[in-house]
Amino acid sequence: MLWSRIARNSLKQSEKSLGYYASERSLLGNGLPTSKLYISSLRNVTATRVGAGYPVSYGVRGITGTPQYNFLAAERVVEESDLDCDNTRLPGLEATKPGEKPRVVVLGTGWASCRFLKGIDTNIYDVVCVSPRNHMVFTPLLASTCVGTLEFRSVAEPVSRIQPALATAPNSYFYLAYCKGVDLDKHEIYCETVSNSGLPQEPYRFKVAYDKLVIAAGAEPLTFNINGVKEHAYFLREVNHAQEIRKRLLLNLMLSENPGISEEEKKRLLHCVIIGGGPTGVEFSGELSDFIMKDVRERYSHVKDDVRVTLIEANEILSSFDIGLRQYATKHLTKCGVHLKKGVVKKVHPKKIVLSDGTDVPYGLLVWSTGVGPSDFVKSLNLPKSQGGRIGVDEWMRVPSVEDVFALGDCAGFLEKTGKQVLPALAQVAEREGKFLVEVFNRIGKQNGGRAFSAKNIPLGDPFVYKHLGSMASVGRYKALVDLRQAKDEKGISHAGFVSWLIWRSAYLTRVISWRNRFYVAVNWATTLVFGRDNSRIG
Amino acid sequence: MLWSRIARNSLKQSEKSLGYYASERSLLGNGLPTSKLYISSLRNVTATRVGAGYPVSYGVRGITGTPQYNFLAAERVVEESDLDCDNTRLPGLEATKPGEKPRVVVLGTGWASCRFLKGIDTNIYDVVCVSPRNHMVFTPLLASTCVGTLEFRSVAEPVSRIQPALATAPNSYFYLAYCKGVDLDKHEIYCETVSNSGLPQEPYRFKVAYDKLVIAAGAEPLTFNINGVKEHAYFLREVNHAQEIRKRLLLNLMLSENPGISEEEKKRLLHCVIIGGGPTGVEFSGELSDFIMKDVRERYSHVKDDVRVTLIEANEILSSFDIGLRQYATKHLTKCGVHLKKGVVKKVHPKKIVLSDGTDVPYGLLVWSTGVGPSDFVKSLNLPKSQGGRIGVDEWMRVPSVEDVFALGDCAGFLEKTGKQVLPALAQVAEREGKFLVEVFNRIGKQNGGRAFSAKNIPLGDPFVYKHLGSMASVGRYKALVDLRQAKDEKGISHAGFVSWLIWRSAYLTRVISWRNRFYVAVNWATTLVFGRDNSRIG
Repeated sequence: MLWSRIARNSLKQSEKSLGYYASERSLLGNGLPTSKLYISSLRNVTATRVGAGYPVSYGVRGITGTPQYNFLAAERVVEESDLDCDNTRLPGLEATKPGEKPRVVVLGTGWASCRFLKGIDTNIYDVVCVSPRNHMVFTPLLASTCVGTLEFRSVAEPVSRIQPALATAPNSYFYLAYCKGVDLDKHEIYCETVSNSGLPQEPYRFKVAYDKLVIAAGAEPLTFNINGVKEHAYFLREVNHAQEIRKRLLLNLMLSENPGISEEEKKRLLHCVIIGGGPTGVEFSGELSDFIMKDVRERYSHVKDDVRVTLIEANEILSSFDIGLRQYATKHLTKCGVHLKKGVVKKVHPKKIVLSDGTDVPYGLLVWSTGVGPSDFVKSLNLPKSQGGRIGVDEWMRVPSVEDVFALGDCAGFLEKTGKQVLPALAQVAEREGKFLVEVFNRIGKQNGGRAFSAKNIPLGDPFVYKHLGSMASVGRYKALVDLRQAKDEKGISHAGFVSWLIWRSAYLTRVISWRNRFYVAVNWATTLVFGRDNSRIG
Repeated sequence: MLWSRIARNSLKQSEKSLGYYASERSLLGNGLPTSKLYISSLRNVTATRVGAGYPVSYGVRGITGTPQYNFLAAERVVEESDLDCDNTRLPGLEATKPGEKPRVVVLGTGWASCRFLKGIDTNIYDVVCVSPRNHMVFTPLLASTCVGTLEFRSVAEPVSRIQPALATAPNSYFYLAYCKGVDLDKHEIYCETVSNSGLPQEPYRFKVAYDKLVIAAGAEPLTFNINGVKEHAYFLREVNHAQEIRKRLLLNLMLSENPGISEEEKKRLLHCVIIGGGPTGVEFSGELSDFIMKDVRERYSHVKDDVRVTLIEANEILSSFDIGLRQYATKHLTKCGVHLKKGVVKKVHPKKIVLSDGTDVPYGLLVWSTGVGPSDFVKSLNLPKSQGGRIGVDEWMRVPSVEDVFALGDCAGFLEKTGKQVLPALAQVAEREGKFLVEVFNRIGKQNGGRAFSAKNIPLGDPFVYKHLGSMASVGRYKALVDLRQAKDEKGISHAGFVSWLIWRSAYLTRVISWRNRFYVAVNWATTLVFGRDNSRIG
């Protein structure tokens, strides 16, 4: 089948969204990059947390699902023995004993980890998954939920449905928690529960000993240290981000109808600005334009002529796509009323952004999708790093220099010595890596290599080879781009238009994880076509 | 048809949920109850707001859709002329001029106001609706959304779909705002926009002049001034309440799996307590028990045996139902594992409630549904009041002693002099009142009585007579109660069991406002049957 072959490229912004593993800086993190020891000063964490760049209002905007902490570099005031003692006292899962199944600990619930979890042989392994979110997000369709084309639940897949053992097997668990530190020698991770008060100690900490550790904790949106981004812009990587964008969009539409609002103010409120012309930015622009052309006209007709969408990109939109497709997208978006603007953001204020050429751009809604980079958690780990600061791995996704640690997806990258390039932060890359690694795991598990320090002499099979299947992006109004070239400079099929849009929809429908959500996505699409989009503002 | 006749009784708790119109006390409100003047000291509002009884954490729990303010009684420091001047300066809709359509202002988006809005003849009237929420909630099915049987959007109906003129007619508007005061002489209301910063002045205030005013602003949950209820319990009257209950329920299920949690703590986290044995409390208990028996067993099997549901009621559950049905419900709920307990709550602590007999009941989730009473806004209005503190109306839903003001639904009650009893706070009462009043309005509008002070000599037709159609409540596991008696002491058909459950579902399906939601409710029910309930914890 044509479209069973098709997967999607360059979802650099919205793809993995695993929730970020917040962490403090390592106490002992000044050593060599090959140091195997990372011990977190858990006792100092909350006391030294500072708000620099992350004011309280950040959480209030609803990005609470993915909080980011910034910790002062802890000073060397605590002795190692103290720390050890502290972590020893933590409740948790102790190391597995002979006769028990080996325990695989997976960090994250994104594309890589969920593909891994789905395939793991639970007859061989016990599985523990640690993530601040209990579901996987079908990120390619997240943009559609912001305007009500799809419901939020249709793009969320509970992890306990992907791997039922997490919920039912006696020694497998899902923990709604952040991993805050790893002790590579002891083979333990230290976690902090996601909670809103209700446990005996807050924050509630525990440890989990692992036989094998798979780090697939994702990446974080790049803000290039631009002032005001985290305070005022919305990201689009989690379902609750989409919920917040939707709430703000509907609020602005209603506020702009208030009596006495000046024309200028109205235009500002109704100006939606998207920063970043990658597939996420383009697809969100297309969805917004669809929403405005159809639903706003019908249901906010008092203000319909004041709604505008501007997409700001420093270089070219959809730079990874074929030139013909790029031109098509530019033409089509412009026709749909999306204003394309070249520019670089210098500063973000609550109601306007300032570009580097000095232009002010007032906005009512600002969505930021300029790609992802390593999270604080990944930065804090004393592991070898690839180019771009990801966790360095070899061709079998192993982290060299430490034993039994693997990394996948947006947080992992090939080390220079492998001679391979760091792969882009894409769903299809992450998924393929998860699929590869779980086969390796099942193979070594069958040869009794599952336990800690025991896989040394077991052949791992062929190394991981990534073959790009192509890229897709919808651009609104029943049009999409499909680019089946395997690399930027190669030749191959590319197509844009209604047929591509049909391919885009069909491909994603087949890729949605569960039959339940596949059914709901289809039903959502059908009802949007028949009844239009829902515009209840809940909450 | 049998079930087209059936509507629902005694949804005393979750029914109307219009959002509460917060208000400060009237400056001039010390006069006689027949005083026609209510002027709010808008300038003093924010300065004198106090948090007594409504701590900040209240909003953080997500009941932000229905904030409640408490204002110090303003002192007589501002002269009337100042106030007038202040309100005069507010932007807003001025009084309609001859030649323009008369303007009907409706407060609220619940059953009464939405039925009224649906029927209003927009060829005769311009309509302005003011409410802090832009959708109606199909409250009888709200309990089902807490556990994922139904999706949240399936029970929310945007008001602009109920009355499209609000979105499209040149002089009709929907304002997402709270009404904070009414000047009965000037025929003006004073509003404050729902916003989260983003307007030139915050809070943003405006006024709307009316020809006719329909107050259908609903009621508030009764807490009997019990300490801790507002801080720690969840109500179940809005979609975001249901969202919060769901989030807490799923969080508690996951937290209880954390390593190191003691057995006692686990039991507390997994103890769901419902206060109030009316239909909402009973239906929510039934849904919870279904969720536990089916979905928790499958997907939280590590903790499934520790989950418990307790329903606490001071008297008898479902007291308005036929005795046979009551006994059936008691037996059925007990069989489903719901622990029924007689008791009166004395105090609510963060992790336990104390009953008046001194018993401590530890809880992880506390849902409060003990009926509703007049809101602060209704209390603040200097209008005649019925028994129970509602706005007093005559048989045509007019508020006597003032002109052009009407009241509907949970916030209205017949005055003693009418010789009629105050009707219960039910969806079917509110809806019927809305339907009655809109016919009166369309009649007087056709006779040119729509404008302010102009309906004096127009015959209004027959007075409103309420005929009770019956009551229904589901009790879980495909069982429900149907009570078709017209009053508590009368005879009539009553039935309990699977057939009643079929009637319950079919009746509600036909009552859901739009075809879109009717379709979604059916689809949700079908997928729940096939795939089970979704347990993604979003946000």
